[in-house]
Amino acid sequence: MVSVTVWNEYVQEQTEDDVAEVYPDGIHAVLAPALRERGHDVRVATLDEPEHGLTTDVLDDTDVLVWWEHRAHEDVEDEIVERVCERIYDGMGFVPLHSSHFSKVFKRLMGTPCSLAYRESGERERVWTVDPSHPVADGLDESFVVPEAEMYGEPFAVPEPDRLVFVSWFEGGEVFRSGCCYHRGNGRIFYFRPGHETYPVYEESVVQDVIDNAVRWAARGGRGETATENRAVGPSE
Amino acid sequence: MVSVTVWNEYVQEQTEDDVAEVYPDGIHAVLAPALRERGHDVRVATLDEPEHGLTTDVLDDTDVLVWWEHRAHEDVEDEIVERVCERIYDGMGFVPLHSSHFSKVFKRLMGTPCSLAYRESGERERVWTVDPSHPVADGLDESFVVPEAEMYGEPFAVPEPDRLVFVSWFEGGEVFRSGCCYHRGNGRIFYFRPGHETYPVYEESVVQDVIDNAVRWAARGGRGETATENRAVGPSE
Amino acid sequence: MVSVTVWNEYVQEQTEDDVAEVYPDGIHAVLAPALRERGHDVRVATLDEPEHGLTTDVLDDTDVLVWWEHRAHEDVEDEIVERVCERIYDGMGFVPLHSSHFSKVFKRLMGTPCSLAYRESGERERVWTVDPSHPVADGLDESFVVPEAEMYGEPFAVPEPDRLVFVSWFEGGEVFRSGCCYHRGNGRIFYFRPGHETYPVYEESVVQDVIDNAVRWAARGGRGETATENRAVGPSE
Amino acid sequence: MVSVTVWNEYVQEQTEDDVAEVYPDGIHAVLAPALRERGHDVRVATLDEPEHGLTTDVLDDTDVLVWWEHRAHEDVEDEIVERVCERIYDGMGFVPLHSSHFSKVFKRLMGTPCSLAYRESGERERVWTVDPSHPVADGLDESFVVPEAEMYGEPFAVPEPDRLVFVSWFEGGEVFRSGCCYHRGNGRIFYFRPGHETYPVYEESVVQDVIDNAVRWAARGGRGETATENRAVGPSE
Repeated sequence: MVSVTVWNEYVQEQTEDDVAEVYPDGIHAVLAPALRERGHDVRVATLDEPEHGLTTDVLDDTDVLVWWEHRAHEDVEDEIVERVCERIYDGMGFVPLHSSHFSKVFKRLMGTPCSLAYRESGERERVWTVDPSHPVADGLDESFVVPEAEMYGEPFAVPEPDRLVFVSWFEGGEVFRSGCCYHRGNGRIFYFRPGHETYPVYEESVVQDVIDNAVRWAARGGRGETATENRAVGPSE
Repeated sequence: MVSVTVWNEYVQEQTEDDVAEVYPDGIHAVLAPALRERGHDVRVATLDEPEHGLTTDVLDDTDVLVWWEHRAHEDVEDEIVERVCERIYDGMGFVPLHSSHFSKVFKRLMGTPCSLAYRESGERERVWTVDPSHPVADGLDESFVVPEAEMYGEPFAVPEPDRLVFVSWFEGGEVFRSGCCYHRGNGRIFYFRPGHETYPVYEESVVQDVIDNAVRWAARGGRGETATENRAVGPSE
Repeated sequence: MVSVTVWNEYVQEQTEDDVAEVYPDGIHAVLAPALRERGHDVRVATLDEPEHGLTTDVLDDTDVLVWWEHRAHEDVEDEIVERVCERIYDGMGFVPLHSSHFSKVFKRLMGTPCSLAYRESGERERVWTVDPSHPVADGLDESFVVPEAEMYGEPFAVPEPDRLVFVSWFEGGEVFRSGCCYHRGNGRIFYFRPGHETYPVYEESVVQDVIDNAVRWAARGGRGETATENRAVGPSE
Repeated sequence: MVSVTVWNEYVQEQTEDDVAEVYPDGIHAVLAPALRERGHDVRVATLDEPEHGLTTDVLDDTDVLVWWEHRAHEDVEDEIVERVCERIYDGMGFVPLHSSHFSKVFKRLMGTPCSLAYRESGERERVWTVDPSHPVADGLDESFVVPEAEMYGEPFAVPEPDRLVFVSWFEGGEVFRSGCCYHRGNGRIFYFRPGHETYPVYEESVVQDVIDNAVRWAARGGRGETATENRAVGPSE
């Protein structure tokens, strides 16, 4: 059983009507039960809690952190960003969703601007598996459709992924690297593009299945700490 | 000045009317002058020549080998396949085009089936640069269009590329990793998807530009031989 | 429980006294029980059996194939090599050991000469984990020692590994990429360098632990067949 | 002709006798002429200059930035770190040397702790080329020796390099990934391990040759800016 923390900035659901209509109790309130149904032990945490709900205790008990962020990038405190990154270096999995490509945590881990092109158009997206050998693609068909999507387009300013699992096709003519694997220190990272705050993408069963797969995969990172300091050592010979 | 050999099976242009109409003197007769105009020293070679035109002398004088193959995969002799692969290991560049993904040489270098999905539909293809930092993308716009294309779809059964430069979008709903970099021994390989025998894709200036870029990049592989045998050595200390 | 087949050419143990002294019942007779003790379901197969013991039935029931080959590279039939590779493309794991870097199967999967430098010197080898996040390194210390080793040196003519897990240090002054991960189609491949026919390397508990880790990791490849032929498809849109 | 800026914190050469003895005019005063002799256009810049000598004008005129940093990691201003990183994203090459693995710039680009093991022991290092196909290895022998080195050991907490070119062997029993290629945005990065402030490593001709190769390679990054903001776009179809 994987211990999952679903983190949500939980801002627009409380302040914007069209978002509240789709996710009345927050995006986390859809993702958390979807992961519970699939066998995980799930808690939620949000921006407005003390320490954004990401205390040392919570992180120490988290195998995989699923992340939604859209409006509040600048409101996430640097200290918490560092804490999350350090836990990732020490083996916690991290699954940033959609607009979380622009979160401080993801940008910090990538070391690049992470910028992209976008269009809020409610257009059809078809997500293709380009690497069927990868565990995140387990049990999926060759492709699946997100009926109404916000388009994300290339170039996506990230380091070349360790493994590229999904590429999206958009009705309007673009493509996007929608499923990207990385590891940083002992931690496994899976960036997953689909999702939106006013299209009910996270209600889609296949999208939930992918996040489930990503959680299972990201939970199998390395064990133990990644040193933050250099270590003086004697000869090994 | 790069010494380029454009190799063409040169079969369908001589036996099929619709192909002869588009490429009356062969696909090589379009590619060779396009590369000469861009400053390269170009020769051509075809399947029906002795040793398929790929004698040891020709290969020794070739920096980059551009390859078209479609119908005659089984007619390329194994001995020539080995000779070409060995020259690639020793530093010759290799630029297989479109259906050459199923050539013996490319399959031998990849070690995988190299299969894909396809549809001969004359549909629109838009080729996106996903890695603008790569020399093969030099001078290109963010995307370019092939007005009439044969679709190629994923999964494309190749090893994960060293660098993925282009991803194609197709009108019919698919995506494809259309520009894939590999190295094998000292040789650089760039697989480029666009092209067809009955759509005049190789007349497109931007397609010629990409092949020019690929030739320049592939010419900069390592120097010297890659050993085919193990070497007994004394201590280095 | 992983279904493992340990394949051994089983030649030198039957024809050379110094090898027979170290591995009287064959290298497989050391590896198989070591993997059984660690919880796997293990069978053995050898070169001199019909179809080298690698019938379709055996391979269909094999999750991971562990491979030892040294003297008999040319005696392995091409048909069996193809059969093994196809099963790997369809998801079977493959763990070639030491001199199996020069097996037809491994060379076929890599697409390169796979040559290296060597010295039979009984010198000390220290194997360092450079990627502690990888499952093959689970539970290992930072480094472990093989007291008497045959040196393998660079350059090792293989494609850049997907993940490099181990690098060896040799007393005589060389280094070697000793633990290399690849995937080909749905199958996971882990090349592991340590081992020898006259040094009792496979009796070392830590070496057995690594092979156990490799088996567990290689068993988690993709599900289902990798197409060997291209597939005509209709529009997806 | 490549426009190179050699940046040196230039601290220990002015404050510590044993360093001043080896590099009386600073490490930059050895590196800069070595690169000039090899055909580059070289300027130097140091920490104590205004803006650390890295004004916008200087960076705009720099193709490749060679970097030495050891004691003053915390003294490099964040604003300059960001400016340097942004120029790298826009295509400037970056060649951090030895202890610069712990510079703010390199850590920022990697997104990981970049920690390692070390031993100041004046021991012999042998640097092996594991990827002879890479331009940074042009013209080198299979290996070269640094007679007196500070040892760096694994695990080195960096992302898996795009290409691993060199691996070092140390007399005391360790190995290290000494030549690591990355790209971030349009910029090429080559981390090169050899070097020290009290061993005259940068006087070695072969070490200068490698830095020359690295400069030539890093100068060929992508052209143009990497967007730092997301871009709203219309349909492409």
